[in-house]
Amino acid sequence: MTDTRTITTAIIAPVAPSRGRLRPLGIDEVRITDGFWAERQRINGDATLAHIEGRLESEGWLGNFDRAAAGTLPEGRRGREFSDSEVYKYLEALAWEIGRTDDDALETRFRTIVARVAAAQDPDGYLNTRFGRPGQGARWSDLQWGHELYCLGHLFQAAVARERTRPGADDGLRDIAVRAADLVCREFGPQGRDAICGHAEVEVGLAELARLTGERRYADQAALFVERHGHGALGEIEFGRGYFQDDVPVRDAEALHGHAVRANYLTAAAVDVAVETGDAELLAALGHQWDRTVERRTYITGGQGSHHQDEAFGEDWELPSDRAYSETCAGIGSVMLSWRLLLATGDARHADLIERTLFNVVATSPAPDGRAFYYANTLHQRVPGRPADPDATSPRASSSLRAPWFEVSCCPPNVARTFASLGAYLATADDDGVQLHQYATGSVRTALPDGTRAAFDVATGYPVDGRIRVTVVEDGEWTLTLRVPSWANGATMRMLPGGAAGAASAPEPAAPGTVPIRRDFRAGDVVELTLPIHPRATAADPRVDAVRGCVAIERGPEVLALESVDLGAHVDEAVLAPGAVPVEQDGVVRIPVALRSGGEPAAVRLIPYHAWAQRGPSTMRVWIPTS
Amino acid sequence: MTDTRTITTAIIAPVAPSRGRLRPLGIDEVRITDGFWAERQRINGDATLAHIEGRLESEGWLGNFDRAAAGTLPEGRRGREFSDSEVYKYLEALAWEIGRTDDDALETRFRTIVARVAAAQDPDGYLNTRFGRPGQGARWSDLQWGHELYCLGHLFQAAVARERTRPGADDGLRDIAVRAADLVCREFGPQGRDAICGHAEVEVGLAELARLTGERRYADQAALFVERHGHGALGEIEFGRGYFQDDVPVRDAEALHGHAVRANYLTAAAVDVAVETGDAELLAALGHQWDRTVERRTYITGGQGSHHQDEAFGEDWELPSDRAYSETCAGIGSVMLSWRLLLATGDARHADLIERTLFNVVATSPAPDGRAFYYANTLHQRVPGRPADPDATSPRASSSLRAPWFEVSCCPPNVARTFASLGAYLATADDDGVQLHQYATGSVRTALPDGTRAAFDVATGYPVDGRIRVTVVEDGEWTLTLRVPSWANGATMRMLPGGAAGAASAPEPAAPGTVPIRRDFRAGDVVELTLPIHPRATAADPRVDAVRGCVAIERGPEVLALESVDLGAHVDEAVLAPGAVPVEQDGVVRIPVALRSGGEPAAVRLIPYHAWAQRGPSTMRVWIPTS
Repeated sequence: MTDTRTITTAIIAPVAPSRGRLRPLGIDEVRITDGFWAERQRINGDATLAHIEGRLESEGWLGNFDRAAAGTLPEGRRGREFSDSEVYKYLEALAWEIGRTDDDALETRFRTIVARVAAAQDPDGYLNTRFGRPGQGARWSDLQWGHELYCLGHLFQAAVARERTRPGADDGLRDIAVRAADLVCREFGPQGRDAICGHAEVEVGLAELARLTGERRYADQAALFVERHGHGALGEIEFGRGYFQDDVPVRDAEALHGHAVRANYLTAAAVDVAVETGDAELLAALGHQWDRTVERRTYITGGQGSHHQDEAFGEDWELPSDRAYSETCAGIGSVMLSWRLLLATGDARHADLIERTLFNVVATSPAPDGRAFYYANTLHQRVPGRPADPDATSPRASSSLRAPWFEVSCCPPNVARTFASLGAYLATADDDGVQLHQYATGSVRTALPDGTRAAFDVATGYPVDGRIRVTVVEDGEWTLTLRVPSWANGATMRMLPGGAAGAASAPEPAAPGTVPIRRDFRAGDVVELTLPIHPRATAADPRVDAVRGCVAIERGPEVLALESVDLGAHVDEAVLAPGAVPVEQDGVVRIPVALRSGGEPAAVRLIPYHAWAQRGPSTMRVWIPTS
Repeated sequence: MTDTRTITTAIIAPVAPSRGRLRPLGIDEVRITDGFWAERQRINGDATLAHIEGRLESEGWLGNFDRAAAGTLPEGRRGREFSDSEVYKYLEALAWEIGRTDDDALETRFRTIVARVAAAQDPDGYLNTRFGRPGQGARWSDLQWGHELYCLGHLFQAAVARERTRPGADDGLRDIAVRAADLVCREFGPQGRDAICGHAEVEVGLAELARLTGERRYADQAALFVERHGHGALGEIEFGRGYFQDDVPVRDAEALHGHAVRANYLTAAAVDVAVETGDAELLAALGHQWDRTVERRTYITGGQGSHHQDEAFGEDWELPSDRAYSETCAGIGSVMLSWRLLLATGDARHADLIERTLFNVVATSPAPDGRAFYYANTLHQRVPGRPADPDATSPRASSSLRAPWFEVSCCPPNVARTFASLGAYLATADDDGVQLHQYATGSVRTALPDGTRAAFDVATGYPVDGRIRVTVVEDGEWTLTLRVPSWANGATMRMLPGGAAGAASAPEPAAPGTVPIRRDFRAGDVVELTLPIHPRATAADPRVDAVRGCVAIERGPEVLALESVDLGAHVDEAVLAPGAVPVEQDGVVRIPVALRSGGEPAAVRLIPYHAWAQRGPSTMRVWIPTS
């Protein structure tokens, strides 16, 4: 633990630790107003939320709550055992979006759904449409696969989002969550069942609900669930106990392993526990696990999980491109984990991975219209996929084109809640000032503990352009810390006092890491960071068998891809010409590519990976052979 | 169709087409007496069969038949929905072994089990312990996953094996099969359900039962089942209809695809149908599919199927070493398919693949003691496996060491029936003579259609030694055709009339393919084939991403492997030294290997892949990086 600062103000953000190296800023303090992420937030609000609600309704997953309230279940229940959680994730997304936009129509939709959920809750706080009634499995009778606690974890996160964005709202969601959490503590507390859920999630939910309510029991219960992992409570399954991280205690693991979403959610919760209990040893162990996972078990896109069969991390260096699973939700879980570690430690490498994962996994999932999603994010598409039927429901991960909905539809609402709350992942504060981790046009307005106002606007064309201009809008002496991504060798920074170009300081080198600027700022002062955005070739680690002898091209935070639409042939025909160097002209990156079938190398366009498969069925590869 | 010869004699072999380019020789005509395969046949008979029966008993899979007979099912039924089939495969193995060895104890065991099976059959011929009773699913109610027809296919193959080895035996197995087959024809015939089974197998069973009994309806039913594939009869599943080859008609497929065992069993049956109906177009299509599958979707070991999730073929060139599935049963299915194509066409390439698959997949599965098996056969082991508990039952494919039994235990009895009938896969005959496809010490005794006796002994140390001596033991003019494997560049052949070395002809080059020797043989004449067995390096096809920049070392028909036990380090540390050439001395193959961590290259021993993981937990790789 590097700091014991106690946070006293309410923070309108998904994660609000009571202490840590950095304090998150809320979505009221950080606004994204233009550019890459603003556009995605806009589509999320304009299209994705309504798309999700339409599907929750048409698939009957919302109707399950009505049937529960009417007492007619199990007859007519639809969806998988965890379908309730998608409703809660949608509520969480709505809550952030309402907080962000004050949209009355969304507020009405939110209240309507909460009322339907409320009507389904049992008097003792139990809430699940799949278990506990005559003709259904008994409560907690299938902890391996039943997902009851997992669903409640998402309920808690939704309630936290609502209470933080609309404190004291009379919709009742907070009470629903509290009653359910109290039940969980009674059933699974120190004197209760010595058990855990087969899919981690309730732990982060309880930890955050504790932070929101100040209720210590919830934090203790989260810690208990985390600590109970690794002792075989869930029994054996075909994939082995490592699948749900029940093979080894969390603090003893060497790396994230097993099901990649479960692993990230659980490890994120373990950071929460370590922070709240001041367990420096646990925090250090989790940091070590993160290091090793990023070094050996993470795709260049930030994607995690290389197994289709069990949606799991593979062994070290087992990172096939063509069978990359890289589930969208695992990427989101990775952001959740890295964000918590960043808050706890201040280490900029966590922000680096967040950036990589946001641009190359989370942004890859949704279609431009916000109504179709990748569940899995392959790095190598060999067979052009058939377009998904816009009215159909796809099996998980089966389509090589984005699909509107899945039988297991965890990813769409997970993307929605992440985009709606994205502002909260851009910047943090400490006693001295503000740290800007992610670059987007927008504004930051916050007050430091001594009352100093740290207030500035950001203007940038990032990631297309590498120049980031921070314009201070209020006088005050504080420290502005800017992150220089690990790939940004050659970055420079300069001061433009009063914004006057004439009085600008000479650009100074800014090495990867963080660059603090302590200054008695005047309104109008500009700090300009220039990141070298030109395309660069990245060689594969020779220990990754799957991409030996290949290179990938990156440009700024974006991984680029070769798509057959641009090559005019199947991408497996492509070989990088000897000495090939990517060149950018007029915003288009090209690289000389030869075909196996012969002929002279020709310059072929590369596109951002997140933008692939938007021009019809195609083949695609990120890693390109060099011979 | 290259030939329309009609077979009139009873052939004691698993496959006896009524016509085709080559006639199989039975296990009464071909004997393996010493060497690599004799040893495996011995262990199979001495240890594996009893091991299997013990498990069938202790797992309750045999007991299911007793419960069926007692009318107490479904209570107490154990095992998966296809557990009946393991009993039938075991019966088939026993039948071949009894035919091969005349073992009285085995005969008693065989009859005891047949009696238990007989007692479970319904009066109308239906036979399955999992369906059809009150409290169970209705007959044929789950064709996607229920495996009822699949189980019957294995019953038919067992009955064929029994009737061919003990014609007219009074144990009743033939009648059991005939009653069941008649039921299948009534239920699924042209006027019956327009349906197929989710796992092909009944087709090969019916085709062979037709050949045995001369009952045309069975052949027609097999053809009907084959032709019904590809029209969506089974409906949609998560893995897509290609999983059970119901996405495209068999004759229209471009390559084997979907579940690798299903694909091979179905395609083998399609060859049977093409041969029996004289459908040259279908046969040509299947040959094309085989070509493409071998070129693009087959591991260097002959293994097939690169997906763990759905046990399926991947796309072209999708052949990861570390996630190779290469199920043992898929290898056996591949031998079944290649053998049928070899009989139909005479093309030696099919015998080449059989050899590759037998030595490097089928022989790899069983432990030296014959009591543990690989289900999946990875080509790259990254994490040393934990030894399987000899009393435990493993999930399919989960152990990196051979396991005694699996919840899905298709592989052990499949290996057993293959080894017990292996003699039938070594040689064939046509009007002119005998073709020797696989090399093992033993004898061949057969009569050609004109009455000529083709009789010879084979003596060889193959695959350790490359010299094969064929000694004719009866006078006669006929053609001996020897296969020269595709890898055997530099093979030579010579005649030693009367076996006298002094009068030997000069060695003549024998090019890969087949070498016919027409001669008026005298008893004592020797034909000597010398195959170049020295180790050789095989470069990876650049289109296989997973092994780009790697080489594998082969020696004769054996693929070699680098195991950590020999390297003294994790195999992922290994890099082939520049210009490294494998060298053999005193029967040990070594190659200079450097470690990534530095130091001088050292000569490291390579072992046959089939012999890996016999010295405790280890890491292993077949393909070794060159830089």
